[in-house]
Amino acid sequence: MAITKKEENRQAFLDVFKVLKADILNELRKNNMPEDAYKWTEENLEYNVPGGKLNRGLSVVDTLRILKGDSITEEEIFNASILGWLVELLQAFFLVSDDMMDASITRRGQPCWYRKNGVGLIAINDSFILEGAIYVLLKKYFKKFDYYVDLLELFHEVSFQTELGQLCDLITAPEDNVDLSKFSIAKHKFIVIYKTAFYSFYLPVALAMHMAGVKNEEAYNKSRDILIPLGEYFQIQDDYLDCYGAPEVIGKIGTDIMDNKCSWLINQALFKANPEQRAVLEANYGQKNSESEAKVKKVFLDLGIEKIYKDYEEKSHKELSDLISQLDESVGVKKAVFIEFMDKIYKRTK
Amino acid sequence: MAITKKEENRQAFLDVFKVLKADILNELRKNNMPEDAYKWTEENLEYNVPGGKLNRGLSVVDTLRILKGDSITEEEIFNASILGWLVELLQAFFLVSDDMMDASITRRGQPCWYRKNGVGLIAINDSFILEGAIYVLLKKYFKKFDYYVDLLELFHEVSFQTELGQLCDLITAPEDNVDLSKFSIAKHKFIVIYKTAFYSFYLPVALAMHMAGVKNEEAYNKSRDILIPLGEYFQIQDDYLDCYGAPEVIGKIGTDIMDNKCSWLINQALFKANPEQRAVLEANYGQKNSESEAKVKKVFLDLGIEKIYKDYEEKSHKELSDLISQLDESVGVKKAVFIEFMDKIYKRTK
Repeated sequence: MAITKKEENRQAFLDVFKVLKADILNELRKNNMPEDAYKWTEENLEYNVPGGKLNRGLSVVDTLRILKGDSITEEEIFNASILGWLVELLQAFFLVSDDMMDASITRRGQPCWYRKNGVGLIAINDSFILEGAIYVLLKKYFKKFDYYVDLLELFHEVSFQTELGQLCDLITAPEDNVDLSKFSIAKHKFIVIYKTAFYSFYLPVALAMHMAGVKNEEAYNKSRDILIPLGEYFQIQDDYLDCYGAPEVIGKIGTDIMDNKCSWLINQALFKANPEQRAVLEANYGQKNSESEAKVKKVFLDLGIEKIYKDYEEKSHKELSDLISQLDESVGVKKAVFIEFMDKIYKRTK
Repeated sequence: MAITKKEENRQAFLDVFKVLKADILNELRKNNMPEDAYKWTEENLEYNVPGGKLNRGLSVVDTLRILKGDSITEEEIFNASILGWLVELLQAFFLVSDDMMDASITRRGQPCWYRKNGVGLIAINDSFILEGAIYVLLKKYFKKFDYYVDLLELFHEVSFQTELGQLCDLITAPEDNVDLSKFSIAKHKFIVIYKTAFYSFYLPVALAMHMAGVKNEEAYNKSRDILIPLGEYFQIQDDYLDCYGAPEVIGKIGTDIMDNKCSWLINQALFKANPEQRAVLEANYGQKNSESEAKVKKVFLDLGIEKIYKDYEEKSHKELSDLISQLDESVGVKKAVFIEFMDKIYKRTK
């Protein structure tokens, strides 16, 4: 069976992780880290960093391929892969800590790190080490480039934005205290953009743009203006699939309603609901039983939430397509970067 | 009653915090942060940052005063105060998270942040925001200086070192699983240097040196060679006072023995103990009752641990005094910086 080009790229990307893991561990050796703490950190890195879908990391490399075209060198692909792994490290930092704050049970088909025997709250500090590794590697591989400080600032800025989004999510939708008066379409938008879109969509592209030598601030602003709504759409789609996706396709049974998640669907429903419908939502949202969940879904049905979603999807696809087609490539980016993202995301079923 | 110069400096330093808090909150406003999350972060900053002794933050200002002498300007004092607050923010990031990992009850005479009503594990993300604030402020106030990237790297490096120290401490001395075979004098040294000395002693001085225009790497190395052993001594003294300090003077009743802390005293005791004494230590260290604690203290007494400490104190004072007197000021630092630190720390009783 032939290995596809995509699989080959993925494998090459995974190979770079081995190098970076060795770099971090070497840093611990240089610091004379006691053996048990060294082994602990090795497992922290191995368990938490490489096991995901790698979409965010790979998109740094994909974006640079588009920006540089055929002139791209092996060294540039290697460096873009490093930046891709730094995005994955940032994500690992957030996931390890989010899982604790959300009391999650599994992640990527295995127990969450904090639930492993002997780890517990030490996972807090382990998440810090994952974050810290980003800057160890940036210094080692990118200090020599004129855009080094831009990379540092970009990681700082996006990390901070993500933390603000996570805070807002945590206090708006605590799992154990349902209060739908805290929800709103505006708050949902803030959470989605800050908690997900900046680090998942804008960060990988902006990193590749720095590597490609893009200096024009306008280029970053234009890219952000496309990638943030695209990330917003991606998350809204995620919310939709949680409720309406086929479990055998999305690979999980959605629990957003039972978990009191500040999802796009509930916010649309609250916006449309009459007082009786709102009362049903308030009595049943975030309750851990399937009767309550069914009642919430019945209100969604009565309000035509699926149709509202389909209309939103079409409208957002149209708006983003227009934004991309109007993009002036002379600022230093290419339409193809965004078209590739669009194609991956729209009409996905999982 | 006359206000002392020291109290006046402290008050001026505290005034700078108000400016920085407003800067961070303004950053949230610019990002259209929802009101409840804005207020939450305001309280996070107010509750966790300014309430400590401020020794670390003030020492940035004190060091710059010594390095610049009478030529120091108001603006330089303001900027050094900002860097001092960034050290305090870094410390707040560590303390908020350490208190969770250590299951601490109080901090600075008030409940730990995570124990406040409604906070809980959200404190993990709050600690991230305290760390993130460092880089927001560095960009705002120091991007214009040629040493900006040095400051970024210094904060990254010292944060990472502290996290490595904290990891080693957490897995060496978990409160609920006593295993003295994990302890050693070498491991104690690693923990003390990495978890405390880098951020508490080296960081404030190195920050002031960057501000003073010190470029010579040798100057940083020489300073580190003095400040790290000084920080090590400081922590060992802390361990000593926990057991032998007068509670009415140190303001707390020491609990290191009951809490299974990897303290200097137990490591010295394990090094000296005969098999019977070791058995007593193993049976009683880390046990939450005062009979066990008394048995451990009896072994310390039999082994002459206080005398070993006094000898260590004298020896380390001599060695550090020699290091300081041999320091070649032409590399760009002044002996007075270190003499001031020495005078504050040696022979303290609290």
